[in-house]
Amino acid sequence: MNPSEWFTEQAAGAGSAFSLKIKRKLHEEQSDFQYLEIYETETFGNLMVIDGCTMVSTRDNFFYHEMMSHPALYTHPNPKNVWIIGGGDCGTLREVLKHPSVEHAVQIDIDERVTRLAEIYFPELCESNNDPRADLKFIDGIKWVKDAAPNSVDIIIVDSTDPIGPAEGLFGVDFYRDCFNCLTENGLLVQQSESALLHLNLIKEMRDAMSSAGLSHTQTLFFPQCIYPSGWWSATIASKNALSAFREHDAKNKPFNTVYYNADIHNASLAQPEFFKQAFNSAK
Amino acid sequence: MNPSEWFTEQAAGAGSAFSLKIKRKLHEEQSDFQYLEIYETETFGNLMVIDGCTMVSTRDNFFYHEMMSHPALYTHPNPKNVWIIGGGDCGTLREVLKHPSVEHAVQIDIDERVTRLAEIYFPELCESNNDPRADLKFIDGIKWVKDAAPNSVDIIIVDSTDPIGPAEGLFGVDFYRDCFNCLTENGLLVQQSESALLHLNLIKEMRDAMSSAGLSHTQTLFFPQCIYPSGWWSATIASKNALSAFREHDAKNKPFNTVYYNADIHNASLAQPEFFKQAFNSAK
Repeated sequence: MNPSEWFTEQAAGAGSAFSLKIKRKLHEEQSDFQYLEIYETETFGNLMVIDGCTMVSTRDNFFYHEMMSHPALYTHPNPKNVWIIGGGDCGTLREVLKHPSVEHAVQIDIDERVTRLAEIYFPELCESNNDPRADLKFIDGIKWVKDAAPNSVDIIIVDSTDPIGPAEGLFGVDFYRDCFNCLTENGLLVQQSESALLHLNLIKEMRDAMSSAGLSHTQTLFFPQCIYPSGWWSATIASKNALSAFREHDAKNKPFNTVYYNADIHNASLAQPEFFKQAFNSAK
Repeated sequence: MNPSEWFTEQAAGAGSAFSLKIKRKLHEEQSDFQYLEIYETETFGNLMVIDGCTMVSTRDNFFYHEMMSHPALYTHPNPKNVWIIGGGDCGTLREVLKHPSVEHAVQIDIDERVTRLAEIYFPELCESNNDPRADLKFIDGIKWVKDAAPNSVDIIIVDSTDPIGPAEGLFGVDFYRDCFNCLTENGLLVQQSESALLHLNLIKEMRDAMSSAGLSHTQTLFFPQCIYPSGWWSATIASKNALSAFREHDAKNKPFNTVYYNADIHNASLAQPEFFKQAFNSAK
């Protein structure tokens, strides 16, 4: 394996690494916030890397983007206003805008360069950026949530990098408290929550912090994500009140295409592995 | 990344690779059938590698072994006789023997050295090898099935390496026809079927070959498996007659411990991703 022909991410602290064979580096730059690289891979299409971590590939991003959006949107009874904190590649925004109920979707990514590069190298993810309901802001998501009016949003999707660097503040109780304040009564927060195999403690800390902030009902969903550490990823949904069953009938009759998500997959993603159940029961 | 500190498997033809950081190589040998290596890794315990492919790690083998056994055993109404073709690390055998209904479990691996190394480096997987119901044979599984009496087995588990080298014949219609003949009327065949993201064609060919052999009812299950290509693996169950619902009540009250499997996970593993559904509907 010639290192010059591969992009490799070592999973921090996990003693494992994932590599994709590359044809060439298409772009690299230091933005105001992070180091951005774009590669053309041999079999995964284009690949965006931020601060050395794989973020998005053409081939497998559908798992992540669909599972960060549709389960939450089909759990909320009638989502009209959605914010995406992070998500600069615009793939989550595209999925959110597939829901006819959505009237306004705001994507708040601190780093405009991520979106500008996505427009060039992942144009399919950006195909809804000109939807009249879409609103792209390039400002600090933590401040956006802090300054927002109470009861102003139905769903907040935290589609961020790992909890180091610019995204660290998105995993803390202060941020969750601000989310609590601007969510409507039925509002939901959904956040990527890493790998249950590698980062179980992170999921525990996240759920504890969410609870401390008043988002006391949490639910973790599991799904494959080949290019992320362990290949098995999760998202955690949090709400003020008990989470009701998702709108399964609507999900079964979804008026849009997906690659991974459907109503059966939604149900499946909620199943808790035995070790996960035990970890969370014993923690209570 | 210093190559001498890592074991790396390049997924054949997939343009991706997975690596584990190693402390040291514990053993290597050329057996009569394949090249065997054992490593001590930094974070995944011990690792067995066969012909350059990761087979088993201490840390994450539970996904695979549990999902290769419990779904099939809880789908069959009353499994008494079980054969494991391959499975020389004995992890599947251990799971099978957790089921009180099982009276006789035969593990048929062509390569005795795999089992002898598992006894040393994965003793926990071998803890049921001395169960009076266990029967370890080191002969050719293809011949075993060919020579077997009709109606002699309830479940055949094909726990093999990839369909190249010694295992190739385990993925063909002749083998499936022999399985058909020795399975009882309610009998089930279950076989590891690679990654739905990377090897969709293999799953199609396998299901077609199973059907041609009279095992016309097939069902593919999905589960995480970190150390295998894409981190997302599958098993396919095949039967002569329509597969009935699994014994969910029994699975909910299973009289043994698992790490991943439970009744909810069983249901979840049956959910078909949208692209998979479409691939198989359009193929029919």
